[in-house]
Amino acid sequence: MKLKEDERIDDLHRKGYKIIQNPNKFCFGIDAVLLSSFANVKEKEKVLDLGTGTGIIPILLEAKTKGEYFVGLEIQEESAEMASRSVMLNNLEKKVSIIQGDIKEADKLFPLSSFDVITSNPPYMNNKNGLKNDKEPKSIARHEILCTLEDVIKTASSLVKVGGRFYMVHRPSRLPEIIIKLKQYKLEPKRIRLVHPYIDKEPNMVLIESVRHGKPLLKVEAPLVVYEEVGKYTNEIYDIYGYNE
Amino acid sequence: MKLKEDERIDDLHRKGYKIIQNPNKFCFGIDAVLLSSFANVKEKEKVLDLGTGTGIIPILLEAKTKGEYFVGLEIQEESAEMASRSVMLNNLEKKVSIIQGDIKEADKLFPLSSFDVITSNPPYMNNKNGLKNDKEPKSIARHEILCTLEDVIKTASSLVKVGGRFYMVHRPSRLPEIIIKLKQYKLEPKRIRLVHPYIDKEPNMVLIESVRHGKPLLKVEAPLVVYEEVGKYTNEIYDIYGYNE
Repeated sequence: MKLKEDERIDDLHRKGYKIIQNPNKFCFGIDAVLLSSFANVKEKEKVLDLGTGTGIIPILLEAKTKGEYFVGLEIQEESAEMASRSVMLNNLEKKVSIIQGDIKEADKLFPLSSFDVITSNPPYMNNKNGLKNDKEPKSIARHEILCTLEDVIKTASSLVKVGGRFYMVHRPSRLPEIIIKLKQYKLEPKRIRLVHPYIDKEPNMVLIESVRHGKPLLKVEAPLVVYEEVGKYTNEIYDIYGYNE
Repeated sequence: MKLKEDERIDDLHRKGYKIIQNPNKFCFGIDAVLLSSFANVKEKEKVLDLGTGTGIIPILLEAKTKGEYFVGLEIQEESAEMASRSVMLNNLEKKVSIIQGDIKEADKLFPLSSFDVITSNPPYMNNKNGLKNDKEPKSIARHEILCTLEDVIKTASSLVKVGGRFYMVHRPSRLPEIIIKLKQYKLEPKRIRLVHPYIDKEPNMVLIESVRHGKPLLKVEAPLVVYEEVGKYTNEIYDIYGYNE
């Protein structure tokens, strides 16, 4: 496997899998790792990841679950191509596909109501604060330049089966808007977990499971704490990253 | 002060204040104490508590804040009368009023948009599970028999000033519905704190501050943990209860 300029290969600590990243353009964050741990994928289920970036979520879900098939949709050509090479690097071509395409047009790329599970780690920021260049891969991954929260939720609702699950990671500050939009598109919030950098700090991420046409009753879980002390993850985070295996 | 049958007087650990309770009918819970700590009341502000029960929230807020005037609205005659005697017991008649009346009719009892702060510890349960007698004071306090979540939010929205704050404590399982109804009545969720019995357990209460016509941006705070170990509160809870003063 030949790497392009600035690319590197990282170990995923799961079944010997590796992933290609380019620190100047596309790297995954802890957000994606936590989401792939929060998401439940059962035997033989079909999974779609909206805005897959490096392909980290479908690759980790293939490693961790008994799902049958995993698709990652990514709009940026360079990122989609790099993710496809990561799939090949792990010999996962039969179980993982990376497709280049737009979340806003995804209802034309896939049959409606066809996935058991949809995941997404979408851009968090809906303002242009600190945004120098809206063509940059990192800007597109972090800011709502090519798709909004509503686009992601609308597409998830149209592609997930009735009774199927949609998993998303986002900022707690946008939770009211997330809940309003999920309910608007008939995705009932069923389970939430807040991620706190330290136990006595505000959460900086929220993991949310919603079910298409689910019955209203939310379960808020115990806090997920990232650091026990400076530079030392909690045991749960080491487990999620696969370091304790 | 003469007590009625089954009544007792409890110390509030604040400015020597006491409260009358009847363990068979009306007692306050930790919910009300946490809400009165979560609520910010500034100098000279006017405060209304919807469904005040024993009067615990206005009495604690009078003790803890520099608010000018505190009104407790309570539909049950016996409870309102007992709360009034607690006000007299503490010589607070000039600053705290208990009014008997229905939350659903409160927009006729008070001028619209007239309170700086509204608080409420409403009934949590919207089903009849385990409900033997819907005339019992405890049933009325816990189940949505005489008012629903929507009644409380609608009334809060009509009586709080634009820019004023509404503080509520409720069950996390109903958070999506709470957020939908708050937004529907133009109360923007601004601050949330989840209350966990132990640090590694699911929250069983949520404290929520909303602002009438506020700008959307939610702050989720660090978890509020009740017990350090079995039978031992955390320091924060001892502080809130006033035991460390």
